[in-house]
Formats: sequence, structure tokens, C-alpha cells
Amino acid sequence: MALLFVSTAARLPVWQAMFDKAGIPMIAGEAAVTDPAEVTAIACWIPPADLTRYPNLRVVLSVGAGVDHFPPLPEGVALVRTLAPGIEAMVRDWTLMATLMLHRDMPTYLQQASRGLWQSQPVRLASDRRVGIMGMGRIGGLVASSLTALGFEVAGMSRSGRKRAVPIFPADRLDEFLARTDLLICLLPLTEETRGILGRRTFAALPRGAGLVHAGRGPHLDPEALRDALDAGQLSGAILDVTDPEPLPQDHWMWRDPRIVITPHVAAQTDAAEGAAHAIAVMRALQEGAPLPGQVDRALGY
Amino acid sequence: MALLFVSTAARLPVWQAMFDKAGIPMIAGEAAVTDPAEVTAIACWIPPADLTRYPNLRVVLSVGAGVDHFPPLPEGVALVRTLAPGIEAMVRDWTLMATLMLHRDMPTYLQQASRGLWQSQPVRLASDRRVGIMGMGRIGGLVASSLTALGFEVAGMSRSGRKRAVPIFPADRLDEFLARTDLLICLLPLTEETRGILGRRTFAALPRGAGLVHAGRGPHLDPEALRDALDAGQLSGAILDVTDPEPLPQDHWMWRDPRIVITPHVAAQTDAAEGAAHAIAVMRALQEGAPLPGQVDRALGY
Repeated sequence: MALLFVSTAARLPVWQAMFDKAGIPMIAGEAAVTDPAEVTAIACWIPPADLTRYPNLRVVLSVGAGVDHFPPLPEGVALVRTLAPGIEAMVRDWTLMATLMLHRDMPTYLQQASRGLWQSQPVRLASDRRVGIMGMGRIGGLVASSLTALGFEVAGMSRSGRKRAVPIFPADRLDEFLARTDLLICLLPLTEETRGILGRRTFAALPRGAGLVHAGRGPHLDPEALRDALDAGQLSGAILDVTDPEPLPQDHWMWRDPRIVITPHVAAQTDAAEGAAHAIAVMRALQEGAPLPGQVDRALGY
Repeated sequence: MALLFVSTAARLPVWQAMFDKAGIPMIAGEAAVTDPAEVTAIACWIPPADLTRYPNLRVVLSVGAGVDHFPPLPEGVALVRTLAPGIEAMVRDWTLMATLMLHRDMPTYLQQASRGLWQSQPVRLASDRRVGIMGMGRIGGLVASSLTALGFEVAGMSRSGRKRAVPIFPADRLDEFLARTDLLICLLPLTEETRGILGRRTFAALPRGAGLVHAGRGPHLDPEALRDALDAGQLSGAILDVTDPEPLPQDHWMWRDPRIVITPHVAAQTDAAEGAAHAIAVMRALQEGAPLPGQVDRALGY
């Protein structure tokens, strides 16, 4: 058994050293494969085109947190996404920053600053602002805790309706959830159900002047619906870490709209050592026949 | 005994209603004073020019948190600054936002966005970033707690060296404090000792590429020293809520420097009801001969 590593060169030395130390064979790149039957796992962002080349393949491991771009895998091959506490904390920190930036009118102040205009907007207490989080997985839970600690009134929406430390609205109470949400945070996985969810219907159900923080996936958002909602004053601002496509083309109108702040998909980056440690845990689970940490339910899509 | 209110008209109805309800006489504006001997307290941001007109004056109450702009008061007249939990939470939230913005390279991303450039910078974990807070009063303590909860390595500097939940460096170990500080937060009061403290000597003692978050007072900062430190790469960015003068003139170079983000002194605004509640507590303490909440030690300056 061996793990075939087909990710970025920058990560390779860290993975190699950690696999060597763990005593688990690792092959660096498809060109280095001498016996395809040895490969039981592949770590990648974009998987090799022909996976049938590897008769004993059991696992494909996404080196990022997302898996929505993965094609269907051969029967019997599990899909695993990286579990890394660092990724979760990074997304939590970016989301907290973006939420505070909307809460404290940063898009307006940035626009004023570009004209040298010193003009204060009314300051609101966190306790006067209701935050709604779509996607109450591990990261959503961290974001909810941090914002609650600052005094925000936080609620979450999740399909499972599973209990958390903040009130949770199940998907069939979406309108009620949106009606009480001044700042909407999207941390959803991309599935056929959630594609386009940040669109006209959702924006119309928010209170007037609401803000949007988006760290899900680009295709969750309908950019034209966002523009119309901003133009109508239904939304007051948006901070986006993801777009569709990525990179966002240089001449896209969203770059130039002062009500929108864009960061280039940097809410999190996988730390090489953390990713390698997770991959080693997956390889050990495979050997022992234990459940694979981070295995994705492909029917659910996450 | 009566309180003379010489603050903004917008606050007046809230104060009047709350003083009426508390049964404490309040006079709205100097023009309404019929017997100066009735005035035992004055609530103001800029005090009346001639305080000797009020023979029974005991207290001057700053309607904001700052008192550095107050002139010397007549013998026997106490200076009090507003204590308001809302103010403290507001400054905490702004400071947290600004710290996260530097931690997550927002000045760089904002500059890139203005050119439609999608380019990621390395993401660092909060636990890899050392934050240093100058001024460990009530707000400094709140900021330290919030940043510690996110995983930042936080230390404080305070003249008193009083123990807190984070390591505290006394003023005579300033260089040691600065040498371990990647993100420097200034929450100091303005005194003769702290004026200009954000200057060449301080910046040179920080690790290369450090960031500055400034929610103290404008005159703490030497803008030319800031520009030189940014030009030399000694500092990588700064987020300022205070400038000298305020408003910052429209043609000031700091508005146009992409490494600097400026907000127009909005870290906090006094909530009228909170301010009035504090003023009522001060009037009651005056009646009862109890210690005045928020009384300033004018020798210390805060």
C-alpha cells in the first residue's frame, strides 16, 4: 500500500518527511509510479483523469476542505476531505473579520476614505445585531461561539436541525430564519440543493439593509441578484471570499462596486503539516479497517 | 443642586426624560440658567469658558470616554469621564475587527481589489501571531480576552504592571514588549508621557513587518515616523481610528496611502441613555458624599 501524492510541489517535502517518519510509503507524482497496484490512496486537489489505472485504489483524499469539484469515483473508492483544525480556525477568523467589517460599516468608510471624507455613521452595539449562519457544521459552530461571545444575537440554519449552543432553524423554516437575520453568513457546502441559494428569494426575505458574508462556494451566489438587492437598498453590503468563476476576471463589475469587498478565496489555506498528518491518519485507518476520518457522504455532498 | 447639560441637542431629550424620572433637576444649556448657584455639575464635551460663574460647581462630567482635552478645573471641582459598558464593547469590537484585518492582510487585498487582482497571500494561524496591547485598562482587558480566545499570543503593557489574564510588561520593559509584538494595539490615554509614543523609537523596536492598530488618541502617533516605517518595510500596515487633527484634512497623504486604513473616530459613540444613566449615578454619589464613578486622577491624566 502507498499514497500517491499529486498536489503542489511546495507541500511535497513536508509530506515526504512526515510519511517517511510514519513508515508509510508515499509516491511523489504519477510519473514516479512503477507498480500501479501499490497505490491504495491518492492525495490531490484535481484527481488524475484515469483512476482505473490503479486497481487497488481505496481512497481519494482532497487536500482542501471542499469536495464539490470531484468527479464520481469508481465503485468502492471512498472520498475523504482534509480535516484540519487549522483550516477551521482560519475560516472562523476570516468570517469573524468580515462580519465585524459589515457590522462596523467598513465598506462605507473605505469608500469615504477614497475621497478623503471624515464622516461618522451611527455605531451599533453587537447586541443590537442579529446574525444568521447558513451551514452549522464544525466551522459554523466555531463562528457561532465567537459571535455569541461578542454579544451578537446568533441563530443557525441547518438541514439536520441538530441542536447547537445557538437556536437552529431547520430548512423548512428558512423564511423565518431570514426574517430575523441582519447579517447573513454563508458557510454551506455546495450541493445541488444549495447552488444559487444566495439569490433573489433569499435576499427578499431578509430585513431591509441586511449584509452578506460569503465563505461558502462561488456558485451559491447569484451576482445579478446581489447587484439588484444592493441597488434597491435591500442589501447594504457584502464581503465575499468566493466567486464564480475563480479567479474573478479582472474586469468583473464586482471588483469595482464599493458595496462589495472581495478576498481571493483565502479564508483558509491547508497547512502542509496538518494535511499530511490527516493523510497519515487516513492511511492508518485504511490498514486497520477503521472508519476513515473525513469521509464524505457523496449522496449528501459533504 | 442641578446638572447643567451643555452637550449635543440630539442627546437632550433622552437625558431630560431620564433626569425627570430620577427626580434630579437638569438645566438644558447655559442660557436657561437663572441661578448659577444651583449648578453643582456640568455635563459637556467642551466645558463653558468661565466656570467661576458657578460658585457651587463640584463636578465636570465628560460625555465621552476621553478627558485629555479638558482644561485645568477650579480647585475643588472633580473631573469625571463617562463609564459606559457599551462604549467599552464598541471599542473592543472595532479593535478586534482592525486586528483581524491586519492579521488577514486586508490592506493588501483591498489594494489588489482596486486593480481587479486575484492573488492570495500566505494565511497565518492566529496562534502564529503575537499581539501586544499598550494600555491595559478596562477596554484593553476586553480586547486581550477576545484575542486570546481566538488563539493569538497576547501580552499587554501597562504602567502599573497590574496582573491580568495575559502577561503584562511594565513600562520599563517596553523594548522587550515591542520585540515580541507582531501586531501592536494602542489603547492608551493621552498624557504627557504617552504623547508621540507611536514614533520612530517604538516602530524600530518591533519585529520587521509588524502592524499597528490605533484606537488611542491622534497625538500618540507621529505620522512621518509611520510613513518612514512603512516605506522601509519595518511596518506592513496600520489601521487608525484617530488622527491629529480630527477631522483629518481631505488632502492628507494618509487617506491615499494603501497601507493605511482610516475610520473617522468611530470605535465608539456614547449611547445617550447610557451616558445619562452614568450622569445620574454621579449626581447621586455627589448627594451621598460617595466616591464619584469615573472620577479622573488629573495627575495621571486618566
